[in-house]
Amino acid sequence: MASLEFRLEGHCPQTAARAGRVTTDHGVLETPVFMPVGTVGSVKALTQQQLKEDVKAQIILGNTYHLYLRPGLEVLERAGGLHRLNGWDRSILTDSGGYQVFSLAGTRKISEEGVMFQSHIDGSRHLFSPEKVMDIQRSIGGDIVMAFDECTPYPSEYGYVEKSMRLTHRWLDRCWERFHEMPDKYGYTQNLFPIVQGGVYADLRKQSCEYIAAKGAVGNAIGGLSVGEPEQQMYDICQACCEALAEARPRYLMGVGTPWNILECIGLGVDMFDCVMPTRNGRNAMLFTSRGVINIDNKKWEFDYSPIDEGIGSNFSAYYTKAYLRHLVKAKEILALTIASVHNLTFYLWLVGEARRHILQGDFEGWKREQCEVLRQRL
Amino acid sequence: MASLEFRLEGHCPQTAARAGRVTTDHGVLETPVFMPVGTVGSVKALTQQQLKEDVKAQIILGNTYHLYLRPGLEVLERAGGLHRLNGWDRSILTDSGGYQVFSLAGTRKISEEGVMFQSHIDGSRHLFSPEKVMDIQRSIGGDIVMAFDECTPYPSEYGYVEKSMRLTHRWLDRCWERFHEMPDKYGYTQNLFPIVQGGVYADLRKQSCEYIAAKGAVGNAIGGLSVGEPEQQMYDICQACCEALAEARPRYLMGVGTPWNILECIGLGVDMFDCVMPTRNGRNAMLFTSRGVINIDNKKWEFDYSPIDEGIGSNFSAYYTKAYLRHLVKAKEILALTIASVHNLTFYLWLVGEARRHILQGDFEGWKREQCEVLRQRL
Repeated sequence: MASLEFRLEGHCPQTAARAGRVTTDHGVLETPVFMPVGTVGSVKALTQQQLKEDVKAQIILGNTYHLYLRPGLEVLERAGGLHRLNGWDRSILTDSGGYQVFSLAGTRKISEEGVMFQSHIDGSRHLFSPEKVMDIQRSIGGDIVMAFDECTPYPSEYGYVEKSMRLTHRWLDRCWERFHEMPDKYGYTQNLFPIVQGGVYADLRKQSCEYIAAKGAVGNAIGGLSVGEPEQQMYDICQACCEALAEARPRYLMGVGTPWNILECIGLGVDMFDCVMPTRNGRNAMLFTSRGVINIDNKKWEFDYSPIDEGIGSNFSAYYTKAYLRHLVKAKEILALTIASVHNLTFYLWLVGEARRHILQGDFEGWKREQCEVLRQRL
Repeated sequence: MASLEFRLEGHCPQTAARAGRVTTDHGVLETPVFMPVGTVGSVKALTQQQLKEDVKAQIILGNTYHLYLRPGLEVLERAGGLHRLNGWDRSILTDSGGYQVFSLAGTRKISEEGVMFQSHIDGSRHLFSPEKVMDIQRSIGGDIVMAFDECTPYPSEYGYVEKSMRLTHRWLDRCWERFHEMPDKYGYTQNLFPIVQGGVYADLRKQSCEYIAAKGAVGNAIGGLSVGEPEQQMYDICQACCEALAEARPRYLMGVGTPWNILECIGLGVDMFDCVMPTRNGRNAMLFTSRGVINIDNKKWEFDYSPIDEGIGSNFSAYYTKAYLRHLVKAKEILALTIASVHNLTFYLWLVGEARRHILQGDFEGWKREQCEVLRQRL
């Protein structure tokens, strides 16, 4: 079994967009790729069959914080890792738990050693250190594991962000060491991605990129964006990071975003994305479609018997009508959550697939400009 | 398009069980058949794709009371009926709303004319009369529609049950007249089934069977059972009804029941079943399997990585493990509801399919005796 490989297959002549192919021991990701979020080992409201056959996901995420608390490491280890527990035989990426510890946990105390926090489930106290988080991710068994970082909120003062970034760097060193001194646990290779931090400060981001570049990791991530900063600032920082990060390695922008965010960031050189938006917004009756955004709760869809979306080559999205989905939402049927989630994820995967096709075809820029206008329309 | 047809294909030499084939304008039901309940036009937590491909349902139920309140008749009519609204192109049966009016509605007032009740959603007042219920079912467009009846609770005194049964008979006359003076609405044939009532009183049941026999309907239903009476009493009344109802017509036992109830009643001559148990109990972590009943919430399954059920020829039920499903239940994931519901329904459909196979093979009785013991075991 082998370390993650990345092969570039095409570049957009006008933008920094590129198409490539990431290979892990669980398969190939054609990039740009979108990764559905499977918080506790299940992408909310979808079966693994729907993820494969309808959404056509090549990789899903698991959240270290959630999986550590539930089902816990013993269940995961005795299963032989998350792939074996949930039956997902394609690639898996796990986050480091950092973001969740800061956003979900109640009281938490940060120190050089790590973060002491209380479980949002039962209030029990736990320490996440860089070493512990590596050990946990070894037990979960993702193909790609993330370094433990502090994600600073927006806005944060320069001094705080700088201090936090340096802590993230020291934690990265400890993650790196621990990760590489431990063997793979389940017979396939896991791969560690460092995370760039530095808030909205371009010079800090540059320093952070340089710091992680020294590791020569097989892939790199950009963290700490899409946390409330203006859209343009996100693009500016994303661009600065992409320019500073290794061309020959996949770049993963964490937690972003809307369909138009994703297209813009592909144009800046990002290869991998994840976001809860398609599933979370779907569960709140918001649909992303190839013609724009739909609030399916709205009375205007009551008698609209047209398919949810016929423009994305999906039998599933063409099967159910807007009037039916609206009815299910009003009646609070579980099926409403499933249909909206399957559709939104199918749309996201279609979108990055189309972006890839247009990059390879050489007409990405014009297509992207057009799409960004269409997709953000409110229908 | 043609009225419902029933062809008998085989009889059990020891019991009254039979195998047959019901044909509606939307397809064939191989009997004995189990009909998943799709209350508001969705079988809870399942997609129509899962119902077809995993569960292999040949017909689903819709509830007149629920559909009348939500989405309402205008949405149904402008869609061209429920088949068009929910995309289910196989057969549909709708109940008459009687049972729901009595069990769900708050204040209600029963008279010769019908039942005045208040919606459980917004408290609005509505009248269900036999004529109105026929009109509503015409608008929903089920292949099989049910007569409007009063379902007496258990226990009820003889005098009350007798009076109620006679009202149900007068309502049946009005249903029959209204139904047959109105043309089919959507280009295919709808079929009206009368319902036998009479509580647990054998002589009343006999009278009721005789009364409805006079209609010469294409199929007949047994209502008012599985409402709290002892199991043996249910079997006795079911047997009396089956013996009194036309041999050449399908017999539908409403709202029954556990897997062993279903096998016993097949042995008494029942051809069609519906029940919310597989979905409702599934949503409460109870699994019916080919080896017995599982409470998947139980700690004993925490490290059990064996498939939910490998004995029913289902890829879906063999895909997910007990440990994974238990984890999803504990984490309150929506996927837990889906997996349990798909599995339980797949099991129910497998069970009636096996019953059919054994009837045709001539060894139903011995198989049934064995199964009834295995299936009710608590694992």
